[in-house]
Amino acid sequence: MEELKEKIRREGRNLGGGILKVDSFINHQVDPELMVAIGRELARRFADVGATKVLTAEISGIAPALTTALALGVPVVYARKTKPITMPEKVYRQKAPSRTKGREVELMVSPEFLRRGDRILIIDDFLATGQTISALVRLVAESGATLVGIGAVIEKAFEGGRALLDGLGVPIESLVIITDMSDGRIVFAGENNGLGKTTDFIGENNGFLGIDHGH
Amino acid sequence: MEELKEKIRREGRNLGGGILKVDSFINHQVDPELMVAIGRELARRFADVGATKVLTAEISGIAPALTTALALGVPVVYARKTKPITMPEKVYRQKAPSRTKGREVELMVSPEFLRRGDRILIIDDFLATGQTISALVRLVAESGATLVGIGAVIEKAFEGGRALLDGLGVPIESLVIITDMSDGRIVFAGENNGLGKTTDFIGENNGFLGIDHGH
Repeated sequence: MEELKEKIRREGRNLGGGILKVDSFINHQVDPELMVAIGRELARRFADVGATKVLTAEISGIAPALTTALALGVPVVYARKTKPITMPEKVYRQKAPSRTKGREVELMVSPEFLRRGDRILIIDDFLATGQTISALVRLVAESGATLVGIGAVIEKAFEGGRALLDGLGVPIESLVIITDMSDGRIVFAGENNGLGKTTDFIGENNGFLGIDHGH
Repeated sequence: MEELKEKIRREGRNLGGGILKVDSFINHQVDPELMVAIGRELARRFADVGATKVLTAEISGIAPALTTALALGVPVVYARKTKPITMPEKVYRQKAPSRTKGREVELMVSPEFLRRGDRILIIDDFLATGQTISALVRLVAESGATLVGIGAVIEKAFEGGRALLDGLGVPIESLVIITDMSDGRIVFAGENNGLGKTTDFIGENNGFLGIDHGH
C-alpha cells in the first residue's frame, strides 16, 4: 500500500531495537482518512473469506479493525485487557507476553460476542513477534468460532511473527512489510536496503490473496 | 439521535448502580455503521467551532472520536493510560478518578500532538460524572491549545458531569441524554419515566448548537 509506505517514510521513526514509532498517524494520533483507506484495503484483501466479525485487541488495533469492519459491513469486537464491570463473570481469556509493556497481558472477550457460528477475521496494527495475534487466535479457538484470516497494517518481518501463524492455514495479509530496521534503516520488502542489495522477501506467501511485496 | 436511542432500548442493559451496559455496540463490540452515524451527527453539531483536532481518552472513546474526526476531516488524538515506549520522556499528564476501575488513572498526551495553535474538540463515549472529560480539559489547558467543544455519545444526566463542565463556556453536546436509571429504568430526557410524569431536562442548554432533548 504505497500511501502508507509514503507516510511511514515521511513520519515513521526508527527508535532502535526494532521499535517503529508511528505515533503521528496510528498509535496515538490517528489520521482518519488514511485509516479508512487502510480498512478499505484490508477489506478488499479479505473480501472472499466470508468474515462475519472482525476481532482485534485494544488499544491500537481498534482504529484499523473498526475501519476494516466498516468496509466489510460486519461488527468489530475488541478484546479487553482489563475487565470492565459490564463484562460477565465467565469470559474467554488468553495471556500474551507484551514486549512493550515488559509483562504478560491478558486478553478477554465476552462469550456474548464470539460465537460458534462466527467466522472471525483478526486485524491488528502490527504483526511483529505474533504473540498478541496468537492470543487472539486462541480466543477464537476457545469460543468455537472459525478463524478465516489475519491482517495487519504493518509487518516487521524480521521478528518472525508470520512463521508462528503460518501453520494456521488461513490467509495472512500485511499492508506494508518491513524487512530490516537495523542501524536506523526502515527497509520495505523488495526494496534496496541501502547496502547495494535488495532484501529478500521474508515470510511465506500463502498463495491466497496476494501479499504486498513492495512494488 | 433516534437511531441510537432505539439501539439502547433494544440492546442496552441497566445493571444497577447507574451502570449502563452497551457492550454490544459501543464498549466491547462496536457497530461500525452506527458509529459512523454517531460521528457524523457529532461533527454536524460541532461544524461551526473550527476544531483542528479531536481529543479522546483510550479505550472506549476511540471509536466515536475517530468517526467524528473523520467527518470533520481532522486528526484524532487518544490520550494514553499507560506510557508506550514510543512516547517521549516529557508528556502532558493529568489524573482522573475512575469509578469503573476503582482507582485513579493517569491520562497522557505527547506534546507533539497537542499544540498551542490547536482548537480541540473533546469526544468521549459517556458523559457521566465528567471526571475523565475534566482530565482531558486539563490536558488541553496544559498544552496551551484552545478547547472549543465537548461531545459525548451518551450522557447520564443524573451523575452531574455537565454541571462540572458548564463553566468552561464551550458547547457541550450529547447525542442521547438519560435522566433516570433507578429501579431498572432507562429514561431518556423528555420522556415519561413510567411513573406518570415526564422527566425534566437536567443540565443547562448552552444555547449554542442545540441539545437533543429527546424529541
